[in-house]
This record gives sequence, structure tokens and C-alpha cells, in this order.
Amino acid sequence: MIQKSHSVFVRIRYSETDQMGVVYHGNYIQYLEMARVEWLRALGISYKEMEENGVMLPVSQLSLKFISPAYYDDLLSVKVILSKIPTVRIEFDYEIRNENKKLICTANTVLAFVNITTRKPVKCPNYLLDKLNENDI
Amino acid sequence: MIQKSHSVFVRIRYSETDQMGVVYHGNYIQYLEMARVEWLRALGISYKEMEENGVMLPVSQLSLKFISPAYYDDLLSVKVILSKIPTVRIEFDYEIRNENKKLICTANTVLAFVNITTRKPVKCPNYLLDKLNENDI
Amino acid sequence: MIQKSHSVFVRIRYSETDQMGVVYHGNYIQYLEMARVEWLRALGISYKEMEENGVMLPVSQLSLKFISPAYYDDLLSVKVILSKIPTVRIEFDYEIRNENKKLICTANTVLAFVNITTRKPVKCPNYLLDKLNENDI
Amino acid sequence: MIQKSHSVFVRIRYSETDQMGVVYHGNYIQYLEMARVEWLRALGISYKEMEENGVMLPVSQLSLKFISPAYYDDLLSVKVILSKIPTVRIEFDYEIRNENKKLICTANTVLAFVNITTRKPVKCPNYLLDKLNENDI
Repeated sequence: MIQKSHSVFVRIRYSETDQMGVVYHGNYIQYLEMARVEWLRALGISYKEMEENGVMLPVSQLSLKFISPAYYDDLLSVKVILSKIPTVRIEFDYEIRNENKKLICTANTVLAFVNITTRKPVKCPNYLLDKLNENDI
Repeated sequence: MIQKSHSVFVRIRYSETDQMGVVYHGNYIQYLEMARVEWLRALGISYKEMEENGVMLPVSQLSLKFISPAYYDDLLSVKVILSKIPTVRIEFDYEIRNENKKLICTANTVLAFVNITTRKPVKCPNYLLDKLNENDI
Repeated sequence: MIQKSHSVFVRIRYSETDQMGVVYHGNYIQYLEMARVEWLRALGISYKEMEENGVMLPVSQLSLKFISPAYYDDLLSVKVILSKIPTVRIEFDYEIRNENKKLICTANTVLAFVNITTRKPVKCPNYLLDKLNENDI
Repeated sequence: MIQKSHSVFVRIRYSETDQMGVVYHGNYIQYLEMARVEWLRALGISYKEMEENGVMLPVSQLSLKFISPAYYDDLLSVKVILSKIPTVRIEFDYEIRNENKKLICTANTVLAFVNITTRKPVKCPNYLLDKLNENDI
């Protein structure tokens, strides 16, 4: 079973707080995306180039559980975990923690590989499957 | 069984699109919130005043399914449906459709009633339960 | 001298506040854009169609003065005023007020007409100049 | 004459693009703020703690010139420059460049020192003035 994960750090911006004095819940979506993109980069793949080469990855499903609030200026770690071999879809789990290792949020997203011109589903590109076989990140 | 629903209309802003030429998936979170707030207002309750009276409603769980893309300048309808009597939590389902009635997105959120000072869970305020019994929106 | 203006109303979203308990200053940019787009629509022009017909309007300069804070759930009026005949650029002034007519923010933006394919500057489309001559909004 | 500057790097998020395929102009406001906060941190001051100690810094004026577009995944450098000794206000200039050193955007912001409880203007805290005299960043 593969279990490939990667972590990024995100410093909370002032604009990302709301009047409850915590990070607005909708902003976590962006942190998940940052983690996915850097996971790909760590594999040697640029998502920007993936789009330029004709494949995009829109999110088709997402779920989040908010366990503890995060605050302005917190440096969050966002861990992304791939737990299945991608097909026409790719699925990730996430764990977001603060500097005290406290669990802030867990999440799951499902994304679809889509041809950027026809907007039709396609299979996971071979260069990504190859990288997953090579790497052990 | 209660089945109280309310719809709002949201005009997509340019800033809400991304370079795929569609609404960025994270922005739907805001539309869900707008629908909840207007559902409350239709019941005769101001969420702003609820906070001023010491109770806030952070989101504890959310899930979304993205079925079809929405585009810049689309006028989306966001339908919010309360399907259970609120306790210490309140749960909503949502359906977002475009002007052609095409289903864009479905969603579910769970929110917790929280004392704004102590940040501890509290029960759904009686004035909200009373309104739910009175109204048939 | 032309003095064509139009007003829109914007309900402040929770996500648009920050931990100061006021609207985050960067979010006003979106309200200015909403006012411009609705000014065009009142003239009988869809900005979406303008782009589909090959002309886009990126912002090249903007300035804002923040006079008084706006709060969650405020219903702001955003007045946009065209004070010069557009050339390769179009310039707008703005006044944002709250429900008590208190002045919240003034702003000015300059936008450039740009060919969407070549990304080169072009003149204001004739159909917009014609509408400005016809209308007195 | 003081000329204290600091640079930060910002990786453009997908959510920060719009359907023109470039960074949405309103999002630069956040990058300016990130540069200011890190300029303070380089001086040994936490903006978060400044607020906890009772002084906040709302933006009272801002202006931006958009010179060249920035794109998804660009790594922008945001240079912030303090050119006057702060009084009840603090003023910054900014230069945003891409990885090829191309100038993307210039900006200026004026912020006011404000007592977080009374919301009245106050003078720049002495600990900040002291740091400005000590440091040569």
C-alpha cells in the first residue's frame, strides 16, 4: 500500500481571519491546495506545467472537520497524504496542525483529471504514475 | 418532520473566478453562509444580533460535491434546508443551481452553538426554537 | 461635462470581516468592481459579453481612502461615477456609504481597454461610447 | 534620511488568479500586508503582540499601479520601504517583482496607529521608534 505524504507550512494572513478572531473556515480550502501543489512539486511535477500540457485537476468533492481554531500569525503545518493509486480521480487526506502540534482541521478532497480543452475526464497522466512508483516521499 | 428551506440569489463576482474560467471551488463556502444568514433573517432573526447577544455559530463540519461549473456573472440560487431540530448543533443541506436550473453544487454543513465569551458549546437559543415552531418558511 | 453615476448595494459577508471586527480593507476592491459591472449593465452592456467579444478591462491604477469602518451585515451603497469620456482608458470615482449615509470609503480606479487575445491596448468600443451618448443614468 | 526596507517572497495561489489568467488585482493588498508584517518581525516586533498590547494599525489610504501581470505559481518578491519616521501614521512604499526581476506592481499605503479599545489615534509606540533607531535593515 502506498502512503505518500508531504507537509507545507502556511503563515496565517490578517485577511484570513474573521470577526470571531480566528481563521475563517472557508480559507482552509486554499491551504489544502497549497499542500497538494507542493506535494506534486516534491515529486518533480509542476501543476502549472500539467495545465500547460493540457490536463487540469478540478476538485469534485471536499469535506472538512474543524477541530480547534487557528489564529492570526499562526504557522500551520498542512500534511497531505495520498492513500490510493490515482485513476481518473485522485484523492487526498489532510491534517492541519499548529506550532504546538495541536490538530486544527482534517480534510479529504477528491479531484478529477480533466482535459483542459474538451473538459472531459481523462486518466491520471503516466508521468505522474511513474513518479509515484519512483519516489518514496 | 420539519423541512424548512430558504433560497437566496448570488451574482458571481469576477474575483470569485480562477484561471480555469470558473468559480473557484473554495468560494462556494461563502454562498452557503449567505444562504444561512438570510434563512435566519427570513425567520426574523439577525445573526449579527445573535452574536451581540452572546451566541456564535462556528462551522464544525462541511462537505461539498461539485457537479457542474459556475461562471462569472452567473446568478446562482442557493437553497438552504434545515432537516433536523437543532440541539447544540444545527445542520443544513444546500443545493446551488444556475439560471437554467442546472445543479451546480450540493453541500452539507454542521455548526455549533457557542458562547462567544467562554467559547464553550451551548444549546440552541429558545428564541430560535420558538421561531422554528411558529414559522413555515 | 458628463457625470454618469450608478449605485449598487452590497451586504457585507462574514468572510469579509477580519479580527479587528470590521471589513478587511482589501475587500472593498470587489465592491468597486461590482458597482462598475452594474453601471455597465444599467447602460445595457454586459461585461461578460464584452470579454466574449474580445475586449477586457484590467485595472491599471487604484486608490482608496478609508474614512470610517464598515461592519458585518452592513448594507453598503457603492456609487460609481464616470467623469471623463473614455479613451483607451476609463476612469471612475466611487463613494461607499453605510445605511446611515455615513461615508465609509472613497476610491478612484483607472482601467485599460485591452484586446483579450493580443493583450494590447485598444480604444473604448464604439457601442459603449454610443450608450454613453444615449443614456443619462 | 532613513530608508529601511525588507523583502518577502509570495508564491501565487491558484485561488488568487481570475479568469483573465492572471492574479486578481485585489489580491495584491494581501501581499503588501505580508511584507509589512515581516518587516516588523525583522525589526524584532510581532504585529500580533502589538495588537495584544493594545495598538492596531488599520490602513487609511492605499494606492497601487499595476504595471505587468503576475501569473499562477509565480514567486513574487515584495519589497517594502519605510521612507519617513512614523508619527501617528506610518507610510510605506512597495515594489513587487517576479522571478525575472520584472516590475509587476508599485504601491503606497498609509496606516494609522489606533488604540484597540478606544479606537482613537495614538502615537507610534516608543518600542517601534527605538527599533528603527537601532536597526539598519
